[in-house]
Amino acid sequence: MSTDYVPSREDRFSFGLWTVGWQGVDVFGSAVRPPMPAERAVYKLAELGAYGVNFHDNDVFAFDATPAERDERIGAFRKALTETGLVVTTATTNLFGHPMFKDGAFTANDREIRRFALAKVMRNLDLAADLGARTYIFWGGREGAESGGAKDIRAALDRYAEGLNLLCEYVREQGYEIRFAIEPKPNEPRGDLYLPTVGSVLAFIATLDHPEMVGVNPEVAHEQMAGLNVLHAVAQAWEAGKLFHIDLNDQAPGRYDQDFRFGSANVKSAFGLVKFLEDVGYDGPRHFDAHAYRTEDYDGVRDFARGCMRTYLILRERARQWNADGEIQALVAELGQRGRRGLGYERLDQLTMELLLGVRGENLS
Amino acid sequence: MSTDYVPSREDRFSFGLWTVGWQGVDVFGSAVRPPMPAERAVYKLAELGAYGVNFHDNDVFAFDATPAERDERIGAFRKALTETGLVVTTATTNLFGHPMFKDGAFTANDREIRRFALAKVMRNLDLAADLGARTYIFWGGREGAESGGAKDIRAALDRYAEGLNLLCEYVREQGYEIRFAIEPKPNEPRGDLYLPTVGSVLAFIATLDHPEMVGVNPEVAHEQMAGLNVLHAVAQAWEAGKLFHIDLNDQAPGRYDQDFRFGSANVKSAFGLVKFLEDVGYDGPRHFDAHAYRTEDYDGVRDFARGCMRTYLILRERARQWNADGEIQALVAELGQRGRRGLGYERLDQLTMELLLGVRGENLS
Amino acid sequence: MSTDYVPSREDRFSFGLWTVGWQGVDVFGSAVRPPMPAERAVYKLAELGAYGVNFHDNDVFAFDATPAERDERIGAFRKALTETGLVVTTATTNLFGHPMFKDGAFTANDREIRRFALAKVMRNLDLAADLGARTYIFWGGREGAESGGAKDIRAALDRYAEGLNLLCEYVREQGYEIRFAIEPKPNEPRGDLYLPTVGSVLAFIATLDHPEMVGVNPEVAHEQMAGLNVLHAVAQAWEAGKLFHIDLNDQAPGRYDQDFRFGSANVKSAFGLVKFLEDVGYDGPRHFDAHAYRTEDYDGVRDFARGCMRTYLILRERARQWNADGEIQALVAELGQRGRRGLGYERLDQLTMELLLGVRGENLS
Amino acid sequence: MSTDYVPSREDRFSFGLWTVGWQGVDVFGSAVRPPMPAERAVYKLAELGAYGVNFHDNDVFAFDATPAERDERIGAFRKALTETGLVVTTATTNLFGHPMFKDGAFTANDREIRRFALAKVMRNLDLAADLGARTYIFWGGREGAESGGAKDIRAALDRYAEGLNLLCEYVREQGYEIRFAIEPKPNEPRGDLYLPTVGSVLAFIATLDHPEMVGVNPEVAHEQMAGLNVLHAVAQAWEAGKLFHIDLNDQAPGRYDQDFRFGSANVKSAFGLVKFLEDVGYDGPRHFDAHAYRTEDYDGVRDFARGCMRTYLILRERARQWNADGEIQALVAELGQRGRRGLGYERLDQLTMELLLGVRGENLS
Repeated sequence: MSTDYVPSREDRFSFGLWTVGWQGVDVFGSAVRPPMPAERAVYKLAELGAYGVNFHDNDVFAFDATPAERDERIGAFRKALTETGLVVTTATTNLFGHPMFKDGAFTANDREIRRFALAKVMRNLDLAADLGARTYIFWGGREGAESGGAKDIRAALDRYAEGLNLLCEYVREQGYEIRFAIEPKPNEPRGDLYLPTVGSVLAFIATLDHPEMVGVNPEVAHEQMAGLNVLHAVAQAWEAGKLFHIDLNDQAPGRYDQDFRFGSANVKSAFGLVKFLEDVGYDGPRHFDAHAYRTEDYDGVRDFARGCMRTYLILRERARQWNADGEIQALVAELGQRGRRGLGYERLDQLTMELLLGVRGENLS
Repeated sequence: MSTDYVPSREDRFSFGLWTVGWQGVDVFGSAVRPPMPAERAVYKLAELGAYGVNFHDNDVFAFDATPAERDERIGAFRKALTETGLVVTTATTNLFGHPMFKDGAFTANDREIRRFALAKVMRNLDLAADLGARTYIFWGGREGAESGGAKDIRAALDRYAEGLNLLCEYVREQGYEIRFAIEPKPNEPRGDLYLPTVGSVLAFIATLDHPEMVGVNPEVAHEQMAGLNVLHAVAQAWEAGKLFHIDLNDQAPGRYDQDFRFGSANVKSAFGLVKFLEDVGYDGPRHFDAHAYRTEDYDGVRDFARGCMRTYLILRERARQWNADGEIQALVAELGQRGRRGLGYERLDQLTMELLLGVRGENLS
Repeated sequence: MSTDYVPSREDRFSFGLWTVGWQGVDVFGSAVRPPMPAERAVYKLAELGAYGVNFHDNDVFAFDATPAERDERIGAFRKALTETGLVVTTATTNLFGHPMFKDGAFTANDREIRRFALAKVMRNLDLAADLGARTYIFWGGREGAESGGAKDIRAALDRYAEGLNLLCEYVREQGYEIRFAIEPKPNEPRGDLYLPTVGSVLAFIATLDHPEMVGVNPEVAHEQMAGLNVLHAVAQAWEAGKLFHIDLNDQAPGRYDQDFRFGSANVKSAFGLVKFLEDVGYDGPRHFDAHAYRTEDYDGVRDFARGCMRTYLILRERARQWNADGEIQALVAELGQRGRRGLGYERLDQLTMELLLGVRGENLS
Repeated sequence: MSTDYVPSREDRFSFGLWTVGWQGVDVFGSAVRPPMPAERAVYKLAELGAYGVNFHDNDVFAFDATPAERDERIGAFRKALTETGLVVTTATTNLFGHPMFKDGAFTANDREIRRFALAKVMRNLDLAADLGARTYIFWGGREGAESGGAKDIRAALDRYAEGLNLLCEYVREQGYEIRFAIEPKPNEPRGDLYLPTVGSVLAFIATLDHPEMVGVNPEVAHEQMAGLNVLHAVAQAWEAGKLFHIDLNDQAPGRYDQDFRFGSANVKSAFGLVKFLEDVGYDGPRHFDAHAYRTEDYDGVRDFARGCMRTYLILRERARQWNADGEIQALVAELGQRGRRGLGYERLDQLTMELLLGVRGENLS
């Protein structure tokens, strides 16, 4: 088996532009890294072995860019794509950064804001279609509330559905080959966000006019923030035919949104997830939605991006070993035939840990 | 407005038999209260003003009861119901207490156990129908895993669905007027439980053969264990027409399953939930699925049960005050018309807190 | 008893300048409110009934202010204090905002940064002494790590102690009447922060050269982020004679740092804390370290600040009622004399809840 | 380096008798495994390579054993120790299982219960001394409360201290070579436990009459329940000279007390802890305080116990590799000399992960 763990385009690794472009601004401190134009991120990611990028509209051009500025920025981005061969796997609208969205976009109580948000999405859908993106992500970063009285939840959910219905209609009218993926998150930056979990998104999709056009974009960190088992969530999405995309990163449960390097917080959970994606034949992007520690300069950002991919490749290799390990597979074959005896799960789990840690050697069946 | 907060049958309060019958056995200690036969629980609950009960089969008779013992126990229970006029609102199968279910019932790897579980449910469905229960609860207390390799999650979800499909068919064949309600829980007693949240249950229902027969039974504590906003979950279930039942209790987030007295941990959240149920016209049981502290004797259990109902009634009164409060309603009327100004949520939330604490006096609009 | 809940200076309410000056910048969005100069915050807080303020050096003047700018800003601040009569209760050094502190200040691996940090503190200690502050707060917002290998924890704790020892020495040499209070926090903005809890700070103080000069500044939200009982922590600090200050706000457990209005998330916990502070005769500032929701303009900020104080006053009144309630006090008198009977805690807790909700009426003993 | 990971007595592995003897009783289900007498546990643990055991008094004999029964049970236990050569590293009193302790032992409001508890400890201290235990553990499993009014926290802390002072005095009078180690836990089985964290225990010790006799017994799972970094806590205890013992196991944050096999939930955290213990030269027992999944029979219990030790040995080997890895050590040497550049923590952390996963090969410096 390969032991060099150097990514190639066939591995289908992608990154958000923001993930390498994040300057380190947080609630308590200012930027630690200079701005990174979108095109520069594209060149860097191509060098490292990625095959695609996701972009938020305002990763490429500023919210208040003039048409000329917008065109110039898109042009540079497009040129970088052409030169590197990177694809745009997905696109997104930033509906959370600007003060106008402080109470949400699709679920804002103010009708004008809801309308503005829809227009912003439509405009970026045009761009996304033009750039070849086939999946459009919705992360409702301000769709929520801190105070129970602030929003009528039923109205909020209705408005959320209404917005997505209208956008599905728009995509159909335009004839775009784009499908939607909603990304759940339980909280932060709002006290509580609507559609907090993969399950709630799956249930919500069933209420839409075109459920076949809409899937889910689970993010490891977002499920883990709520202490939920991300693999169980991903498996439910897969079974429902709704795993349209996935965001890989890491996170300690019960904390602020950490967006750590994939596999760096809970490698056992990451292993289970990689194994699942590979076993079921998920063929979408292995997308990293994380960022380098704020302690790093751009060398550290490169280490971060490379590390995400390397860890995926190591875990993929471990997953293949697990499937080929005679002792492990013998235990697996027995599951369901042990009657009321002890079920052997301690042994299976320990063998898995030892395999993960690289001390199983070859136990091929 | 009433200030005595004495429950009556019209308030539709119900309790699980186990809630008053719990003897205080936990992982670290033995029983602190003597056993309470089901019929005794019925008489006690009737005295306190409840109108209904839920029962697990093994709350009434032991797992290994002989047919004669079973009949005797059911007879005593039935007699108590007749004498008190209490109704059986819901019934449940205990599929978690016996060692045979240590790896689950519907999702057990062992086929014999899955079959036994289905037979146990069917037998209790017959009893439930006979006793007039219209809702049958499924809480999969052992449907989960500690170790990723132990169960194939997709197979587990398939088996879960297969079990429920078969039971739906059974209910239809028998002509019972019973519908199902699945109760989610994120973890405990298993490391991770399948169908961890209200959202995941709603999504799961859509995959069943008879989704119209199956709804959700949200439990306050179970959503709060994962730090999720229970009202948001309940609202999504309501909007989907799936709020078939509700379990009221309380819980600090990120801890063991506490099953505290309703409103005793987070009264603001409880207020929001009561207000929602009353505002939308939920007409099912206000069901308490909690227990008295282990420090208590049966006097304390009575205080606990009475407290659950009193707190509900107090919060219901507060909800009506909120709807009638002129200053609050003026703010609510403005939601959506404040443009990009400040949204007034601090003021609205503070007024709500003051109303909740009983210092708003009369501010009728 | 008073029912108007209008704060007066005798109530000893104070606020951080940042609490009303926060512009709403977070990880996901930009400023929603214009900047508020320190002097303006002073006038506003005085109007609302506060008696004091805390300031971080860079709340008053910018990190890179020229001497002239610094003097001008301090002059305006001082003038506002004089005109309003507000006191400076406490001061703090901002050792977390500037990029140079990205890996900490006292615990940074880089010696130059540690030295710079000490010099920054000393300079601000001079200002604090001059402005009459008697307590100096240390919150080590970047003293921590994301990665286990990044810092030697033992070295980090040694450096932390070394820094505080040096600063104690400085205060003694200068003859300032200032004592220190360390504010613990478990995480955010670092993956893990050193000295995460009140207990860890108390233990750390014992290792310093002048433990008598150093106490703890518990913050409600910071203990609750880790799901800990803040009252238990405060009580331990009080018993140790180390409750030098307290930061009041609110927070849902297991989430990002929310800094909500005091009492708005868990009012029962807030009640217990107010009751404790009043019962033991804590005579320091009742300090609010929170901020208005990002949805608000400066009217909402005023509502927020007023709400913090009003809630405290309501809860203080409720605490007095609890101490005067005959039925409650009869139960309290019995604690310890119930032998192995049930302990009556359900009843006591329910009475407490009803008192809190304002439905106990008068039950004076 | 060794790759067989077979424990020997020199590795100083110990287990609680309860860890292998736990029958699987939890809140939701009954025993799944037959009882295991203490002596049988000793023989089993000896076979597996352990060198010592901890015992709770009621692990060896029942709470209500007659003197003859007690003697017989102790005799069998002692015989097993003699025959196997296992040592008794530590002993403990069960002050949580019996209903009389439902509101605590040292902190119970009822004076008679406090006295009984002290007598129970003294009697077991005699036995512990006789069996050669040098450390005596205090885990206050019921020392806490669910309701704020139930106990006066200050009185509770005073009583806790009073109890320990008296017991220190007893040990001194008897001339036993025994020191105490207090084990913190944040919650479960009580709503909140007193002395919830390592920090709070360290601070509490300073208030005792003989602080030199008392240390801390950190448990991995207990710190992680509160989402705290267990290594940071252990390091603070070590620096204070108070790491008298350690309980190794594993746990997902923000959940019920899981007591999983060491390293099975968060292997990166386990690695950091093993590395610390080995690097600083901790020479106490590597004690496992965990249990096998409830799905297991006694074969699974054996797998569990063996797995704890194997994982420790693997991680110890990995720690040595980390210290010998040239690339890693070069980065470590640079810490503190990178000025305001990026700090290289992403790279260091990724190298650590790769080393942990066994793909670093030999990079000896």
